Amino acid sequence: MATIGFIGLGNMGGPMAINLLKAGHEVNAFDLSQAALDTVAAEGGHAAASAVEAATGADFIVSMLPAGVHVEGLYQTGAAPLFDVISKDALIIDSSTIDAATAQRVSAAANERGLSFIDAPVSGGVGGAVAGTLAFMVGATEAQFAKAKPILDCMGKNIFHAGQSGAGQIAKACNNMLLSILMAGTSEALNMGMKNGLDPAVLSEIMKQSSGNNWALQVYNPVPDVMAGVPSSNGYQGGFQVDLMFKDLGLAMELSQQSNSPVPMGSAARSLFSLHKSKGNGGLDFSSVIKLYQDS
Amino acid sequence: MATIGFIGLGNMGGPMAINLLKAGHEVNAFDLSQAALDTVAAEGGHAAASAVEAATGADFIVSMLPAGVHVEGLYQTGAAPLFDVISKDALIIDSSTIDAATAQRVSAAANERGLSFIDAPVSGGVGGAVAGTLAFMVGATEAQFAKAKPILDCMGKNIFHAGQSGAGQIAKACNNMLLSILMAGTSEALNMGMKNGLDPAVLSEIMKQSSGNNWALQVYNPVPDVMAGVPSSNGYQGGFQVDLMFKDLGLAMELSQQSNSPVPMGSAARSLFSLHKSKGNGGLDFSSVIKLYQDS
Amino acid sequence: MATIGFIGLGNMGGPMAINLLKAGHEVNAFDLSQAALDTVAAEGGHAAASAVEAATGADFIVSMLPAGVHVEGLYQTGAAPLFDVISKDALIIDSSTIDAATAQRVSAAANERGLSFIDAPVSGGVGGAVAGTLAFMVGATEAQFAKAKPILDCMGKNIFHAGQSGAGQIAKACNNMLLSILMAGTSEALNMGMKNGLDPAVLSEIMKQSSGNNWALQVYNPVPDVMAGVPSSNGYQGGFQVDLMFKDLGLAMELSQQSNSPVPMGSAARSLFSLHKSKGNGGLDFSSVIKLYQDS
Amino acid sequence: MATIGFIGLGNMGGPMAINLLKAGHEVNAFDLSQAALDTVAAEGGHAAASAVEAATGADFIVSMLPAGVHVEGLYQTGAAPLFDVISKDALIIDSSTIDAATAQRVSAAANERGLSFIDAPVSGGVGGAVAGTLAFMVGATEAQFAKAKPILDCMGKNIFHAGQSGAGQIAKACNNMLLSILMAGTSEALNMGMKNGLDPAVLSEIMKQSSGNNWALQVYNPVPDVMAGVPSSNGYQGGFQVDLMFKDLGLAMELSQQSNSPVPMGSAARSLFSLHKSKGNGGLDFSSVIKLYQDS
Repeated sequence: MATIGFIGLGNMGGPMAINLLKAGHEVNAFDLSQAALDTVAAEGGHAAASAVEAATGADFIVSMLPAGVHVEGLYQTGAAPLFDVISKDALIIDSSTIDAATAQRVSAAANERGLSFIDAPVSGGVGGAVAGTLAFMVGATEAQFAKAKPILDCMGKNIFHAGQSGAGQIAKACNNMLLSILMAGTSEALNMGMKNGLDPAVLSEIMKQSSGNNWALQVYNPVPDVMAGVPSSNGYQGGFQVDLMFKDLGLAMELSQQSNSPVPMGSAARSLFSLHKSKGNGGLDFSSVIKLYQDS
Repeated sequence: MATIGFIGLGNMGGPMAINLLKAGHEVNAFDLSQAALDTVAAEGGHAAASAVEAATGADFIVSMLPAGVHVEGLYQTGAAPLFDVISKDALIIDSSTIDAATAQRVSAAANERGLSFIDAPVSGGVGGAVAGTLAFMVGATEAQFAKAKPILDCMGKNIFHAGQSGAGQIAKACNNMLLSILMAGTSEALNMGMKNGLDPAVLSEIMKQSSGNNWALQVYNPVPDVMAGVPSSNGYQGGFQVDLMFKDLGLAMELSQQSNSPVPMGSAARSLFSLHKSKGNGGLDFSSVIKLYQDS
Repeated sequence: MATIGFIGLGNMGGPMAINLLKAGHEVNAFDLSQAALDTVAAEGGHAAASAVEAATGADFIVSMLPAGVHVEGLYQTGAAPLFDVISKDALIIDSSTIDAATAQRVSAAANERGLSFIDAPVSGGVGGAVAGTLAFMVGATEAQFAKAKPILDCMGKNIFHAGQSGAGQIAKACNNMLLSILMAGTSEALNMGMKNGLDPAVLSEIMKQSSGNNWALQVYNPVPDVMAGVPSSNGYQGGFQVDLMFKDLGLAMELSQQSNSPVPMGSAARSLFSLHKSKGNGGLDFSSVIKLYQDS
Repeated sequence: MATIGFIGLGNMGGPMAINLLKAGHEVNAFDLSQAALDTVAAEGGHAAASAVEAATGADFIVSMLPAGVHVEGLYQTGAAPLFDVISKDALIIDSSTIDAATAQRVSAAANERGLSFIDAPVSGGVGGAVAGTLAFMVGATEAQFAKAKPILDCMGKNIFHAGQSGAGQIAKACNNMLLSILMAGTSEALNMGMKNGLDPAVLSEIMKQSSGNNWALQVYNPVPDVMAGVPSSNGYQGGFQVDLMFKDLGLAMELSQQSNSPVPMGSAARSLFSLHKSKGNGGLDFSSVIKLYQDS
C-alpha cells in the first residue's frame, strides 16, 4: 500500500481521497477547509497541517484544485512550492481540470527538477467520485501511466491514456466542449419538436434509435419527466452545474485560441450557456439550458 | 398481398419499390426516367405510363419525391392530380422528405375529399433502402399507422409513430438537424484534439466512452481510417451528401421560422455546411465537413 | 396627375396612400379594414369596394401586403386576380416586403401577359411612411424605374435602383440582415463594456468615432438614455418590432438557402432575435435585443 | 519638452517614437532588434542598451509590446523590472493591446509602489502610426489622463478617456470585436447580394445610405474595386492582418469569460476569422474574410 498526499478535498476531491483510504492506502490530506479535513480524517485519513506536510514523503501526490493558477502556485511559484519537498521517486497526479498549457508548463518544470508530474482530469461528477466510477483522462508517458493506473483504479472505472503531457487536459476540453454541443443541440431539437406538437418522450426515443443518438438522449434527457433520476426530473438540481460547464468552455476557448483550432459549434454552445448563466441559472444543472429555448 | 402504386424511383425509391416486390406485393411503378422504370420492371414491377395509371386502383400509393412542391403538384394542384383517381379505400404514404406545412396541408386536402394521406419520411440512406432497413418516421392517426405498418415493414426496420399528420416530417427535421450538430461538433472536437497532438482514434474512443458519446463516434467517424467501411475512409464518397444535409437543414429552418423555435446550434451547423458546400463539396458525404476545419 | 390603385392600407400603406393624395394624385384605395379605408377616404381618397375596382383603369397600382402568398394571390392565383383587369399601360409597384423568388415569379407572369410589375420594398418605418421620407429599393428595368420614380418620390426620399426584377427584395433582405447583425453586435459590445464598468455613452462615442462605427451607434443606440428620441429611451416602444425583424430574417434565410449564400452572422443574429421573441418580446422595438444579453 | 523612454519599436512603436521626436521630445528608445533601434536613432532618438537604461530618468515611459505577459514581465516580474528604476514622478503609458486583467493588475502593482501606470491602446494601424493620427483609448484617472494627453497628442488624433484603469483595453476589445462583426456581416450581405445578381457597388451604396450603414461600407469595402485605396483593391495586402484580428478576438473572449458577458456575435465572427486563418490567410488584411464566403 502507498502513502498518498492528497491536496484539495472539495466536492470531488473529498470522496476521491476516501476511496483511496477504502482501498487501503495511507492518505495525508490537506485542504484549507477544516470541515473538509475532518470528513476525510473521520474515514481514517491523516489531516495534515499544510500542503507541504501532506506531500512530504508521499509516494503519490494527488491534487484537485479549481484552476491552473492554483496548480502552478501549489507546486512551483507559490510561497511554499511542493516541488521543493516532493521525493524524486514520487509521482504527482494532478486531477484538477485546468488549461493544457499550464499542465504542460508545470510538468516540464517538474522534469527539469527530476520530478514526475502528470495530468489526469476526471469526468463523472460528484456521483462518480463517491461511487469510485470516475473516468480519468491521463497525459503521461507510458511508464508514468503504468505507475499511476493502480492508484487511479481505486477512484475510477475508465482510465484512459490520452497521450503525452497535457493530453489529459486536451481530451477533457474536447470531450466537454462536445458534451455542451450535444446538450444544447438535443435541447433545441426536442424544443422544436414540442413546439410543433410532438411528445418529447416519443421524439427522444425516435432520435435515440436514429442518427441523432447521443449521450444526452441516452442518460441525461433535458426535458423533465422523460427520464427518471436525472437532474431535469428534479428541478435541475444536482448534476453538473452551468457554472462548471461555462468554466470548461472557457478552457476549450483558450485551447482553440492557442492552437488556432476553429470551434464554431463549441463557441455557439458557449454563447448559449453564457446567456443562460447571465439570467441567474449558474447553479442549475447544465441540462437546464433547455429553459433558455422555451417560451415564457 | 396488396397492389401498390409507387411514384418516384430514384436512388431511394427504386430499391424501396423492389423490396415491396420481394415481399410479394404487386407494384405499379412510375418515374419520369425510363432507366429507373426498367430497373424496377426487371424485378417484376409493372412500368406504368403515368402516375395516374400507377395510382389508379391501388390499395396503397407510395411516393418518394424531391420537395413539397412536387408532392403538392402530384396529388393536388398539378395538371393530373392523383386525388382525382385514388380510391377512397386506399392509403397514401408519402415518404418524401418535405416541409411539414405542406405535408399537413396535403393531408388536410385529402381528408376533405374522403382520402387518407400520411407522411412517412425515411432515414438510413441508399444502403438502408437497398437492405430494407430504413427507419420510417410516421405522421398519422393510430388507424392509419396500423394499416401502413405491414407495408413499411417490407422496406424498413424501425417504424416509428411520431404523432399526427406532419409529425413524421417534424421528427425527421428535428433528427437531421441534431445529426448535423453532432457531426459538426464531433468534427471540431476531433480536429482540435489532433491539432494539439492527440491520436484521433484514441480521442474518439475516450469520447465514445464518455459524455461526448454520439452516433458519429459510434458508426460514422469523420476522420479517415479511424473506422473501416465509412465514407471518411473512402474519400467521403457515398453516404449522405452535403447537398442533401443542406436541403434538410433548410427544412429545419422553415419549421423553426413557422413555429418560432430558436435553433442557434442548428443554424450554426447549417452555416458550416453552407460554407463547405460553397467550396464545391456538395457531392461529398456530409462527414467531409471536417475538411472545413482543417489547415490547408 | 395619375390615377393610382392602392391595395393594403395598414400602418405603412395608409400613410403612403395619403402622401400620394397630398401630391395631387387620384387614389382608388382598397383594404379589408373599413377603418383603414375611412382614414384614406377622409384625406380625399376613393374607397373602392374591392381590389379589382381599385385596380381597374389605374395608371399605377401600388400594393403593400404582408407576405409573398398574398401578393401572388392578389395578382395572379387568387379568385379575382388583378392581372385580369389591369391595363397594359399601367405599372404595378409592389412595395410589400416579400421573398425575392415570389417577386420574380409574379413579375415574369406579368410579362407573359404583357403587364409590367416591379418590386419596390421600403425601409424607414411608420415614421418614414408618414413623413414621406421612405427609402425604396427597386427591382425593375431602366424604363420601369424611370416611370415609377415620380410616383415613388411622392412617398420617399431615397429611391434606389437595385437592379432587375427581384433586386429590390434582394437588396432589402441583405440590408435588413446586416442591420440585425449591427444591432445585435452593437448591443453585445456595449453590454460587455458596461459589465466591465464603462459608461455606455462614453463607449458609444469612442466606437462611433472608431472602426466600430455603424447605424445603431449613430441614430439608434440600444441602451436607454444614451440617445434621446429613440425607442430604447422610450421603453422600446414604437420603432421596428422584433416580430418584423424576425420575419425579415426568415426572408434572408430563404434567399440564402435558394442561392447557397453562407450567412453565419445573419443566422447567429436570427437565433438571438428568435430567443428574444420566444420570451414574449415580439412587440418591442428590435433594439430591445440588448435585454437578452443583460443580467437578470 | 519631456524625456521619454520608449520600449518596443515594431511596426507601430517605431513610427510612434519618431512622431514624439518630431514633436521635439527627447526619446530614449529600446528594442531587441538593432535595425529597429537604428531607424529611430536615425531620426534623432537615443538608442539605449536596455529597457532599464531607456526608462531610467524618463518623465514618461511608453511601451508597445505584443501581449500581457511581456508587459507584466517588463515592468514587474521579469529579471530587470522597470518598476525598480522608474521615477515616482514619471507616468507610464502602456500602448500595447493586452488583456484588461493584466493591465489592471500591473497598474495596481504600480500604485502599491507609488508609481503611475495607465493603459492606452491604439487603433488606426501602421498608417495611423506613421501619420500621427492614431486613436488612443485610455484607462486612467482624470489627473493621469490630463498628464498623458499632450504626449498622446503627438502620436494621435482622437484621444479618448474611456474610464479608470483597464478601461482603455476594455474599450479597445469591445470596439475591435464589433469591428470584426461589422466586417464579417458586411461581407456576407454583399456576397449574398452578388450571388443573387446585384452589383456590389450598387448594393454597397444602398446599404450605406440605409440602416446597414457601417465603417466597412464607409471606408473599407471588402469587395475588390468597389473602393480605391483599400486593401481589398490591393490583393488584401497591408491593412490590419487576420492574425491580429484573431489575437484581438482572443482578448475579447477572455474579457467575456471573466465577466460572463455573452458575446454570441463576437464568437461567431471569431469562428469565421479562425476558419479563414486556418486556410493560410493569417497574413492578409482582415477584410479578406469575404473570401471565406465565396464560391471556389
